[in-house]
Amino acid sequence: MTQADLSSHIERGLSDLRNLVALQSVSAQGRMLPETAAFVTGLLEAEGFTVREVPGDVAPVLIAEAGPADAPATLLIYNHYDVQPEDPLELWDTPPFELTEREGRLYGRGASDDKGEFASRLAAVRAVKDRHGGQLPVRVRWLIEGEEEVGSPSLERVVREQAASLQADGCWWEFGSISEDGRPVAFLGLKGVMCLELRARVADSDLHSSLGAVVDNPLYRLARAVASLRDDTGRVTIPGFLDDLLPVSPADEAAIAAVPGQGETTLATYGITRPLGAPGEYHRRLNLAPVLNVNGWGGGYQGEGSKTVLPAHGFVKLDFRLVPGQTPSRVLELLRAHMDAQNLSDIEIVELEAHQHPARADAGHPFVRACLDAAREAHGQEPIVNPSSGGSGPMHPFMDALDGLPCVALGIGNVGGRVHAPNENIRRADFAKGVAFGVALLERLAGGLQE
Amino acid sequence: MTQADLSSHIERGLSDLRNLVALQSVSAQGRMLPETAAFVTGLLEAEGFTVREVPGDVAPVLIAEAGPADAPATLLIYNHYDVQPEDPLELWDTPPFELTEREGRLYGRGASDDKGEFASRLAAVRAVKDRHGGQLPVRVRWLIEGEEEVGSPSLERVVREQAASLQADGCWWEFGSISEDGRPVAFLGLKGVMCLELRARVADSDLHSSLGAVVDNPLYRLARAVASLRDDTGRVTIPGFLDDLLPVSPADEAAIAAVPGQGETTLATYGITRPLGAPGEYHRRLNLAPVLNVNGWGGGYQGEGSKTVLPAHGFVKLDFRLVPGQTPSRVLELLRAHMDAQNLSDIEIVELEAHQHPARADAGHPFVRACLDAAREAHGQEPIVNPSSGGSGPMHPFMDALDGLPCVALGIGNVGGRVHAPNENIRRADFAKGVAFGVALLERLAGGLQE
Repeated sequence: MTQADLSSHIERGLSDLRNLVALQSVSAQGRMLPETAAFVTGLLEAEGFTVREVPGDVAPVLIAEAGPADAPATLLIYNHYDVQPEDPLELWDTPPFELTEREGRLYGRGASDDKGEFASRLAAVRAVKDRHGGQLPVRVRWLIEGEEEVGSPSLERVVREQAASLQADGCWWEFGSISEDGRPVAFLGLKGVMCLELRARVADSDLHSSLGAVVDNPLYRLARAVASLRDDTGRVTIPGFLDDLLPVSPADEAAIAAVPGQGETTLATYGITRPLGAPGEYHRRLNLAPVLNVNGWGGGYQGEGSKTVLPAHGFVKLDFRLVPGQTPSRVLELLRAHMDAQNLSDIEIVELEAHQHPARADAGHPFVRACLDAAREAHGQEPIVNPSSGGSGPMHPFMDALDGLPCVALGIGNVGGRVHAPNENIRRADFAKGVAFGVALLERLAGGLQE
Repeated sequence: MTQADLSSHIERGLSDLRNLVALQSVSAQGRMLPETAAFVTGLLEAEGFTVREVPGDVAPVLIAEAGPADAPATLLIYNHYDVQPEDPLELWDTPPFELTEREGRLYGRGASDDKGEFASRLAAVRAVKDRHGGQLPVRVRWLIEGEEEVGSPSLERVVREQAASLQADGCWWEFGSISEDGRPVAFLGLKGVMCLELRARVADSDLHSSLGAVVDNPLYRLARAVASLRDDTGRVTIPGFLDDLLPVSPADEAAIAAVPGQGETTLATYGITRPLGAPGEYHRRLNLAPVLNVNGWGGGYQGEGSKTVLPAHGFVKLDFRLVPGQTPSRVLELLRAHMDAQNLSDIEIVELEAHQHPARADAGHPFVRACLDAAREAHGQEPIVNPSSGGSGPMHPFMDALDGLPCVALGIGNVGGRVHAPNENIRRADFAKGVAFGVALLERLAGGLQE
């Protein structure tokens, strides 16, 4: 099947994407989640999927299935229909919830993460059905949640409860990207993540700042806490934090060494003025380094000019990115002990959402090889393989509950895709390549996996 | 003149105050400043003052005068008609711009700082005129600005330019307070203040926080900067910051030692859970300690839940309270050097508004003694004398341009007055005492100052 044969499916997929982007499914704010789940269900049912809705803490989880029970292979696909908040709104060049095309790119919240991925995969399913007389030649199971952007609080439970309906030969993970020069970029693992809020309070109400002579300051308390968590190189300095890291295999080191470039496009796209790390460390840090991020900070007067106030309280939002060997519960324990040891016992630590453990697949698994072969075929270029993404997601429950199921991330993101930020986008050409990859993968699995 | 004789003047003063509070003269936001200046001019002109409006950077400065040129003494009064922003609005029990009486207290933005002070003094002027056949027996000069809450950016220039119109035997400063047990609390000096913003930026737009492995974090940069400015005891740790402090006189130490209590009412009123300082240090710190305050902090995601974003930039608002010997320009220089010496050259330091130098009057000056005598007479109690307030204001230009003019702060604030905070208030009884004190001071000055 050539690219030309796919064009009607690509256009229909983009039409689906336009409709999906218009649904403001912001999970952090509980906006339009059941409506979006219902719309996704309709799209799947139209292609012959049976769809079940399993209640989640924040939004319904959809579990869908299509294709013959006796197919030579079963593919599990994982996507999510929720998106990040759109703020700061004023930095968007076009409305975030209207998919807008400019110079070969399609802009909108979720255009890449993750509605674009879902729509391109659904288009591939339609194309393969067309080629096979309206029937899928493989079994496809599809889990689509609406809580990914708030840390997938229900997913682990749902995956464990529904394990029988999710058994498969491998899982096609929800994201992936294509390099500037058209090479597919695969990720075989994800970092863990833990989102926390630190809170400090010194009084019941705001005070005149002259009282700063005799009353402590909650924003200073938080500054001292945050300053103690890392150093200027980005190394996390919580005692014990780095003790549990598993050793890195020579194969992982070799794969990382083969990843081209040092993030030049990323650094240029975002106008990054303060990169971290020594020369040559870019991909090693992204793949392997545990990280502390400060996501947000609020407290006191933030308006124009000044206000000589001593605020009663303040907060900092943090995330930790974890690597194999680390667990959220252990890090939380180390953080609390670190605060207490430094006379910061007054700092309250609030867990914002369910945490995620790190996970990583075996690069030699037949499903991983099938994915990379399909990518090579569809893109006509050698894939770039990252043992782990710098990002996170709920991969660990899938591997843990489904007998070590390998998960492979291959998709349609691009390095200038501004995921989670204003002007999120995909390239139209990458969407088309994503449909072609989906077709190649499904056809390859229809032939069975080669041990 | 008894309290009963003053009652009609007190009621009329409270009516003036109600009208003044209704005018939302928030200088930080440029709201209703010319309107409020015009209203104040009308009140003064109705009492026979000639009033001139001098343009200020943000709001007009009013210079008024009444009483005979050959009077035995001239009193300069300094007040301001602008107020602090009312946010956070949701913590007000009644609307901030409606003066509301509950259980002997009058609530509203500016009820204390500084519209209540102005209204009580105007009521005293009316009462003294009544007693003297409609004529003031002393010369009264009055400077009323509308930029005090943004650091009085024009006042120094105006005081220097208008020095000939402001010559006096002493200045009645814009605030003051009355203790829980009814003792007048005098302040003979003010700390300096400098308001700054620190800004950090790492990129042109927000990033996915997975990039925290390879991109620095602006909120961490700010945390490290702020954490380096003071220690847990509140001591400012910028090298050189404490080197310029003038020695404290034995008379100042004695006055501070005689101030009763250790701030128990303040601590209880505001529910302060983290007081600073060793036991017994409360008033010494308020009078003498230079202070760094963090007024506000903003950056990244501040909404509900979490957002795994790496913000492009962030800011912190600070104020420094300075004591005699320190100057804003020197502190700014030390701060920049301190940042640079710590690998924080990327932190931008922005001066938010005009700064104020510290100032302090000689406690033995005849005008100071006259003020304390009038306070003793009107309140029937021994005044509490603070060499300096913990707060700030533009006292230095008055002293500097007007031949060392002594400035004395005596007024109607109360320790639970929530100045600059939600539910700002005065006690009705204190307003009445303030009118009585004004009458006693004017009458005493009408008899001339005793060397």
